[in-house]
Amino acid sequence: MKQTHSKVSQRGELALLGEIRQRAASAVSRSQRSGLRLSIGDDCALLAPHRNEELAVTTDLSIAGQHFRLNWHQPEAVGHRVLARGLSDLAAMGARPVAAFLSLGLPRELTVPASRRAESHSWVQRFLDGLLALAEAHSTPLAGGDLAESSVAVADIVLAGAVPRGRALLRSGAKPGDMLYVTGALGGAAAGLACLENLAKAQPGRANPPRIPKKFAARLAPHLYPQPRIPQGLWLQRHGLASAALDVSDGLSTDLAHLCAESGVAAEVDASALPIHPGATLAQALHGGEDYELLFTAPASARVPRSIAGVKITKIGCIVKARAGRPALTLISPQGAQPLEPQGWEHFR
Amino acid sequence: MKQTHSKVSQRGELALLGEIRQRAASAVSRSQRSGLRLSIGDDCALLAPHRNEELAVTTDLSIAGQHFRLNWHQPEAVGHRVLARGLSDLAAMGARPVAAFLSLGLPRELTVPASRRAESHSWVQRFLDGLLALAEAHSTPLAGGDLAESSVAVADIVLAGAVPRGRALLRSGAKPGDMLYVTGALGGAAAGLACLENLAKAQPGRANPPRIPKKFAARLAPHLYPQPRIPQGLWLQRHGLASAALDVSDGLSTDLAHLCAESGVAAEVDASALPIHPGATLAQALHGGEDYELLFTAPASARVPRSIAGVKITKIGCIVKARAGRPALTLISPQGAQPLEPQGWEHFR
Repeated sequence: MKQTHSKVSQRGELALLGEIRQRAASAVSRSQRSGLRLSIGDDCALLAPHRNEELAVTTDLSIAGQHFRLNWHQPEAVGHRVLARGLSDLAAMGARPVAAFLSLGLPRELTVPASRRAESHSWVQRFLDGLLALAEAHSTPLAGGDLAESSVAVADIVLAGAVPRGRALLRSGAKPGDMLYVTGALGGAAAGLACLENLAKAQPGRANPPRIPKKFAARLAPHLYPQPRIPQGLWLQRHGLASAALDVSDGLSTDLAHLCAESGVAAEVDASALPIHPGATLAQALHGGEDYELLFTAPASARVPRSIAGVKITKIGCIVKARAGRPALTLISPQGAQPLEPQGWEHFR
Repeated sequence: MKQTHSKVSQRGELALLGEIRQRAASAVSRSQRSGLRLSIGDDCALLAPHRNEELAVTTDLSIAGQHFRLNWHQPEAVGHRVLARGLSDLAAMGARPVAAFLSLGLPRELTVPASRRAESHSWVQRFLDGLLALAEAHSTPLAGGDLAESSVAVADIVLAGAVPRGRALLRSGAKPGDMLYVTGALGGAAAGLACLENLAKAQPGRANPPRIPKKFAARLAPHLYPQPRIPQGLWLQRHGLASAALDVSDGLSTDLAHLCAESGVAAEVDASALPIHPGATLAQALHGGEDYELLFTAPASARVPRSIAGVKITKIGCIVKARAGRPALTLISPQGAQPLEPQGWEHFR
């Protein structure tokens, strides 16, 4: 309880806040802060989008043991993944990142250096290294947040992005006859996680993440360092091609079901067309989640390019009419058509 | 880990999300949603402030065992307090609430009814009762958020508010010669917490919050149901009277030190002028925190009213020049002047 304590030392929360403020200020130069007028240091940050813009806002909660594991994931990867989740939601709306806010609840031991050596960094410093590197790559200033002691490590990321009024990509615009597209490849994150799990289980009882042999680095990258598709989302928004869009965070089968529900349509997915990530299985591509690719629909007449900003675009199916009593999703394969059940992640099952 | 699980049932997270979505939709009518264009159901919410407005954004993290206790606080009070923290930050900027976002991490047992009786509600339902009642009182729609399973209950609240461009109340504008004011009374929350602690300790070993005898209800109210000063903040912003402002969340001594640091000034507080809440001590008024009153400065020539929107305004001191080697805060009492050390709450001390 706040009020059962008293006496403030000059170390602790204020020192950590000061460090975050300083690092946030240097991570993104002022010239990049289009739309952020006041940052860390007041009761609120102030966002000033252009007069013809509206603001997209999203929050994503990450909890140790649920979304990451302290003995599996390097702190830099945890920081990267926390921010990537939020940026991916902005990408799905076609929004330009304006500011991020980070609420951190941490066990005390994660805020002190691992050893007494001068160069030793604390877990939270390394977490910020990963988070701020991705923030800089997408010109996203860290504009505020909150900090508290917690027995479990939790990080809630808030992203605000700007999009011209009425131009945001929504989940609700897909129409029968539209084609279905996905960026990049699917299943890579699930395959990477399986690989990481094997590495961790080969070193049982370790409190720290496993050392990653060089030959596994590429296989783990889609899981540890997913790339939010901000440039691709912006391209789709600016060209007005997509009738609906969302990001694949819970798995293609679950997220496509969301898109169909919000649009009031059904979808057919062509299994043989799926861009399955090298090393991943069909099941991982269909249900794996955390790939953070964009799933979008466009009219059949739209000229969708083969790649956008260096990332491949693949047509994987089409939108059809929803019919009562029929499954919303159908998987078409050489063996025939079968219902595609949402099998992504859900809490409190 | 998201991807180590599969199979989605129709209960669980989706059912809880559906209930929150439905209740959020009915809690605040559409006509009140000025500035909120798209709410729960897409990757992001869309906020469309008026063309001459900017957006104030704040996040506040509440964690069981740190900011509330499951065996001390009724769930309705936890929900109220979580939202009050965020609304109070908007009040401190003089902003009109536009939307709230809630990230909830909960142990599974808090999501199921306490008993099998039909009328039995789960902890999270009662938490939402408290949160949405306050949201409705301040016309603040719940526009999004996130939900996850967690071994510790955590709630991160995000508030977005609108304020005319360049008109937000900041911490940084106080000048030597300005007078120092506070809304309402101080120390009531700390006195209420002490009372609650006594009630809880009189019933040791209980997992549930203590029954509150009627005669204690008024004494506990400032702690359990603090009132964010939204109307007073809006009044100050519209009248352009305040040179600086913030909310008293960590205690007068700590928050006044923040105001002085951001403004580059020092302050003198008149102990005999402090509006101490009935039943509270001077120490609770100075250092207690969580009163969520507004602390603001105004030029000596400003005509500050005795009350704003029904809440008393009290002049409690003045702003003076900061001098190297001198404490930023001085407490003036009949016994003379003494340094006022910040003694509010700090995590990771």
